[in-house]
Amino acid sequence: MSNVRVGMVGYKFMGKAHSNAYRALPMFLPDVPKPEMKAICGRDPAGLEQARAQFGWETAETDWRKLVGRDDIDLIDINAPSDAHKEIAIAAAAAGKHLFCEKPLALTLADAREMLVAAENAGVKHMVGFNYRFAPAVQLAKKLVSEGRIGEIYHYRAWFLQDWIIDPEFPLVWRLQKEIAGSGSHGDLGAHLIDLARYLVGEFDEVIGMSETFIKERPMPSAMTGLSAKGSKDAPRGEVTVDDATLFMTRFANGALGSFEATRFAAGHRCTNSFEINGSKGSIKFDFERLNELQVYFSDDAEDVQGFRRVHATDAAHAYMDAWWPAGHSIGYEHTFTHEVHELMKAIQEDRQPVPNFVDGVKCQEVLEAVDRSIAERRWVSLKEYQA
Amino acid sequence: MSNVRVGMVGYKFMGKAHSNAYRALPMFLPDVPKPEMKAICGRDPAGLEQARAQFGWETAETDWRKLVGRDDIDLIDINAPSDAHKEIAIAAAAAGKHLFCEKPLALTLADAREMLVAAENAGVKHMVGFNYRFAPAVQLAKKLVSEGRIGEIYHYRAWFLQDWIIDPEFPLVWRLQKEIAGSGSHGDLGAHLIDLARYLVGEFDEVIGMSETFIKERPMPSAMTGLSAKGSKDAPRGEVTVDDATLFMTRFANGALGSFEATRFAAGHRCTNSFEINGSKGSIKFDFERLNELQVYFSDDAEDVQGFRRVHATDAAHAYMDAWWPAGHSIGYEHTFTHEVHELMKAIQEDRQPVPNFVDGVKCQEVLEAVDRSIAERRWVSLKEYQA
Amino acid sequence: MSNVRVGMVGYKFMGKAHSNAYRALPMFLPDVPKPEMKAICGRDPAGLEQARAQFGWETAETDWRKLVGRDDIDLIDINAPSDAHKEIAIAAAAAGKHLFCEKPLALTLADAREMLVAAENAGVKHMVGFNYRFAPAVQLAKKLVSEGRIGEIYHYRAWFLQDWIIDPEFPLVWRLQKEIAGSGSHGDLGAHLIDLARYLVGEFDEVIGMSETFIKERPMPSAMTGLSAKGSKDAPRGEVTVDDATLFMTRFANGALGSFEATRFAAGHRCTNSFEINGSKGSIKFDFERLNELQVYFSDDAEDVQGFRRVHATDAAHAYMDAWWPAGHSIGYEHTFTHEVHELMKAIQEDRQPVPNFVDGVKCQEVLEAVDRSIAERRWVSLKEYQA
Amino acid sequence: MSNVRVGMVGYKFMGKAHSNAYRALPMFLPDVPKPEMKAICGRDPAGLEQARAQFGWETAETDWRKLVGRDDIDLIDINAPSDAHKEIAIAAAAAGKHLFCEKPLALTLADAREMLVAAENAGVKHMVGFNYRFAPAVQLAKKLVSEGRIGEIYHYRAWFLQDWIIDPEFPLVWRLQKEIAGSGSHGDLGAHLIDLARYLVGEFDEVIGMSETFIKERPMPSAMTGLSAKGSKDAPRGEVTVDDATLFMTRFANGALGSFEATRFAAGHRCTNSFEINGSKGSIKFDFERLNELQVYFSDDAEDVQGFRRVHATDAAHAYMDAWWPAGHSIGYEHTFTHEVHELMKAIQEDRQPVPNFVDGVKCQEVLEAVDRSIAERRWVSLKEYQA
Repeated sequence: MSNVRVGMVGYKFMGKAHSNAYRALPMFLPDVPKPEMKAICGRDPAGLEQARAQFGWETAETDWRKLVGRDDIDLIDINAPSDAHKEIAIAAAAAGKHLFCEKPLALTLADAREMLVAAENAGVKHMVGFNYRFAPAVQLAKKLVSEGRIGEIYHYRAWFLQDWIIDPEFPLVWRLQKEIAGSGSHGDLGAHLIDLARYLVGEFDEVIGMSETFIKERPMPSAMTGLSAKGSKDAPRGEVTVDDATLFMTRFANGALGSFEATRFAAGHRCTNSFEINGSKGSIKFDFERLNELQVYFSDDAEDVQGFRRVHATDAAHAYMDAWWPAGHSIGYEHTFTHEVHELMKAIQEDRQPVPNFVDGVKCQEVLEAVDRSIAERRWVSLKEYQA
Repeated sequence: MSNVRVGMVGYKFMGKAHSNAYRALPMFLPDVPKPEMKAICGRDPAGLEQARAQFGWETAETDWRKLVGRDDIDLIDINAPSDAHKEIAIAAAAAGKHLFCEKPLALTLADAREMLVAAENAGVKHMVGFNYRFAPAVQLAKKLVSEGRIGEIYHYRAWFLQDWIIDPEFPLVWRLQKEIAGSGSHGDLGAHLIDLARYLVGEFDEVIGMSETFIKERPMPSAMTGLSAKGSKDAPRGEVTVDDATLFMTRFANGALGSFEATRFAAGHRCTNSFEINGSKGSIKFDFERLNELQVYFSDDAEDVQGFRRVHATDAAHAYMDAWWPAGHSIGYEHTFTHEVHELMKAIQEDRQPVPNFVDGVKCQEVLEAVDRSIAERRWVSLKEYQA
Repeated sequence: MSNVRVGMVGYKFMGKAHSNAYRALPMFLPDVPKPEMKAICGRDPAGLEQARAQFGWETAETDWRKLVGRDDIDLIDINAPSDAHKEIAIAAAAAGKHLFCEKPLALTLADAREMLVAAENAGVKHMVGFNYRFAPAVQLAKKLVSEGRIGEIYHYRAWFLQDWIIDPEFPLVWRLQKEIAGSGSHGDLGAHLIDLARYLVGEFDEVIGMSETFIKERPMPSAMTGLSAKGSKDAPRGEVTVDDATLFMTRFANGALGSFEATRFAAGHRCTNSFEINGSKGSIKFDFERLNELQVYFSDDAEDVQGFRRVHATDAAHAYMDAWWPAGHSIGYEHTFTHEVHELMKAIQEDRQPVPNFVDGVKCQEVLEAVDRSIAERRWVSLKEYQA
Repeated sequence: MSNVRVGMVGYKFMGKAHSNAYRALPMFLPDVPKPEMKAICGRDPAGLEQARAQFGWETAETDWRKLVGRDDIDLIDINAPSDAHKEIAIAAAAAGKHLFCEKPLALTLADAREMLVAAENAGVKHMVGFNYRFAPAVQLAKKLVSEGRIGEIYHYRAWFLQDWIIDPEFPLVWRLQKEIAGSGSHGDLGAHLIDLARYLVGEFDEVIGMSETFIKERPMPSAMTGLSAKGSKDAPRGEVTVDDATLFMTRFANGALGSFEATRFAAGHRCTNSFEINGSKGSIKFDFERLNELQVYFSDDAEDVQGFRRVHATDAAHAYMDAWWPAGHSIGYEHTFTHEVHELMKAIQEDRQPVPNFVDGVKCQEVLEAVDRSIAERRWVSLKEYQA
């Protein structure tokens, strides 16, 4: 079982989360190939060197092309801003590197498909970073659905609520610029909602959406780091070119009805990534702000004690939890990445594609674009329109 | 301050709730005219007499026309099945009686409008039974919105989830038959959602919906009482002609985005009537299963102690609560009707229309029909289509 | 089945709650003798007449002796301040009246015992007003314990937290004066805790307690109604002669360990009457601020879905709930009194003692006094010291 | 700022948690000296080598005396079973090593005091592992208390509930043997409760307790790892020599009343480490199963919106959180150790004693022993009995 040598492009929020996962994996989940943290890559030499030292990478590269060209690298991890994903991924695939790309895979569906084709043609492994799948509570939801324990699914409703840009003076960071971020709440938060829905319920059949940009202009940022930034009342203003909120409804291929909402304007919600599934035999509720918990209801419980159970998914019976602490001891956000990287390493070990991979990234992008089209054209859009 | 003499048509679930309100009012909220429980009306003499005696009505009538014609009655309370509302209301108005009609006002918008015109022409008071407005926690939500304490509204999401017909063998009761009930989850539960949204956010601008009948055929009922009924596996089957679930999205006139879901297929939810409002200065959450509570968030709380407050709306500072018990002592579902009847009696006393009245009933019906049209025609429907 | 003719002494908070129960009973639970509200009794003629009219009593008496002497009364309901219970109860028993007495039964154990003897000697029915037993969620807890569904009990912990006198300027109302109230949080709140523990776990074996009066002096009240009152900064001060908080530990006869706390100084808790039971096969949690809910855990649930269930005890499967509204519709505080009065009427109908009765009142008083003694003498006190 | 070279004795549950903290510190909180993971020490060579490789220690030692004697070690981290703490700590102090010792400091108060004296005489830094202090939500509680934002403290109640040995067939692991563990729930869980109480409220004045061993005999274990173990029905039985549950009441030096309960027999509670503080101006609630949250109530909130706030203590305003992820992203159990080690390294850097240190360990032990004495002698025990 040889190590997997990793080169990572990006060193901000996601770069930190991925680095932590590579560091934690051999200690907590040592049954898969160990990732070797060979090189970290970014454009700003000073910031990069600090990240390299702090996160524990062996070397640093300021040119991703050079990184991709190194022959001591097996896997390229791409978590730079979304507009950079495509070019790097295609070049890395061409160089025979495995790919681990943050979501959204690309700015457009066409780009995402190009990336998938490139990866498939190159015969490399490819994974997309839908980390929320890897919360043990979400894995439990998947298990309950798969085993038929909540029956046929009637309803799925999901919302991802944040409030970090609710202040109109919050500056125009890159995530609010369409040319870099692709979209706003839709591609950032909605992408996660769509992936979880595909994971738990199945494919989308048709969609219709609506969206809004509540604050149309914001001060230009003077400095920018990750999600936070500093604005100024006197700063020049720029146009917000992405959505602040996007909602849509769907009919799934299996007949279930779905309702989705992504917004950055829900005061009091820092990171409420929630879903509920209602089935013929029971229901499931999840809220990422309490990521260790799953609410589960079974219709066949004795009639005097029916009710949602608050399952603290930290028992040995829950996915990944024997790797961590005794029952009742919560894990945090970053653990989802460690589990994700475990799947990636395991897939490389077993010579199979990891899940979720670029196919999932493309299918998520299809739904994102179908929703966009439904908004632009004010009509229901069938996902069949995206099947060549 | 003379008493208001009431004649009531209907004696099942709603008849019981209304009767209780008339009984409770003079004891707990004695500052308004006392309702005199003169006559109860229904078709089945045996059941009617039992209800009369049990609920405490002076007399019983098996013919609503006779009731309407009695000159010792000031107010006709209509809580018979929805298909009977219109004829009774119009006749009662013609006879100069005040009107208190359960929701939905009628089976169609046209009927509802006819009722409103009749009531207005007759110069009588008219009220429609959107009782959820009268939960003290909902009144608090209204107060916070009205006083601008959560700022400009960005989002409203609401869902009314039940599971009482999730068993495919549950029989085909009248609420599942379009010719009697008008619609299913949409008119029954969605009507409440729409009214609360109008109360808290304002008028709807445009809507688009989707709906489903998951179980298409059910056994014919052998007996039927209120919401429950007894079916049989060997019973003949009949077609379910109403929706099991209806979802829709909206844009409000004030620019807020709305999302609505009404379903009778959400396992584990007996009566989850919930909403959340996100504004520029705060947020509000309500769940009827915990009807004494309101979750409230203020963005300007000190930054280290920001969080949703669980307000137990049973203090003297909360609407109606000084009429009941000391702080911390919960009230129940039926109290919403007592408060509702208080508004009705107070309006009669003050010679003004109660709120909500038939105008609200009509406007609710407009939204219901707009959603139905949007489903039938698979397009966004503007409420302007309903403004003559 | 003849009616039971009631005469009630007291017309404040408890008088209102009892009156409501008598009014509601024949409408919602008509299978028992109907209470006839014959006479209400109090000292202040004006206040009394207002209560009589508002609550719906036929007549009023300003002298309880006269009430007790009336031959058109079957039952005397005593909810006057605690110092008046004994004399009235003994006289009423002597007059052959059934007795329904609010808790605490008397100011002292000796008095309580005298009352029990008097009632037993007179051969009348006697009930004590531990209304919390009659919340359907509490009845469910009792059922689960009785049926062995949570196994052998290891732990019981209970607390009754309020904050209505936390303001040092709140005046010296009668509940803060030992000669009228007997004790403070201990007799008022602790009595409920003790009764619920006896109901759910069984008899106490030994106790040790501690107590405190945090605010030693308060302004004399200028007016007083029920729990609320108006004080003044300039008012003369009087000594608080009861406990603000009392805690104690116990060992139950069955070996379970118990922990109890009653306080009026728990900011944010208006009426948190809570308990938790831990057994060998499961656990139960209750909080009166969410009185319709019971949290239930079963150790033998499938290992991946173990967790506390939030049971909304409003289904038809739950005690009394078929008398009220459909599943999911909450009931309120006063319903516990309606259920309590149902038990009282049923016991009269069946010619048996209601439960809880004066025996329970005496046993509760034994524990209260044992705790007081343990505080005074700073030692464990065995309940055997109270068994003659 | 030179590195701190660490030698660690113990490699099971706590050894893993500490190792993770040393690994995480330089990446997430790099403003303090970096711990160098020089050597790990244990008795079983095979298990030790696996831990060394997995946790990332440079070398391994099977003899702690040899470890203590190494001159390339600055700090000895002691997380072996409790009976080994004293000898190692004293030897390490004599060798001039800084000390980081898990709780409870020792099996007896006398031992703990000896350790403190040894550490003080040697002039080394000493820390004791009360990690729960370092949850950001707990740090927030401390801040609110310290800043007087909840006023004068009236009540403190705390409980640590677990259920991992509730099965009578769970084997007799070392934690159930007095000679190794010192005590059961009391020293293991109660020690944490006592330390948090001292941290948040202050010193104890007097205590009285009770305890129980519900299951007196258990099967001897055939293998043992950390908290879990395998027993067998046919295995020989051994006596359980520690407490399954210990409760006690206290009066704090500042007049507050306290109530404490530690048990391993609370079904459904995997790790419920909870406390509530009631003050004259507000209240605070914490539950470790939701370690990222603090419930906070302020009496001076506007009267219509008073209620406990659920603060998700993951904002930048909360202690340590700017080191981790954006607001709303939960951290886990092990992060408390990372924060704890940060304090340790910072204290070394600043040449001061870390907090909590052996003084806190000794004071905790005083309370533990006072409770034990109060149980043995069935009386209130003053902490003054422990002040020479």
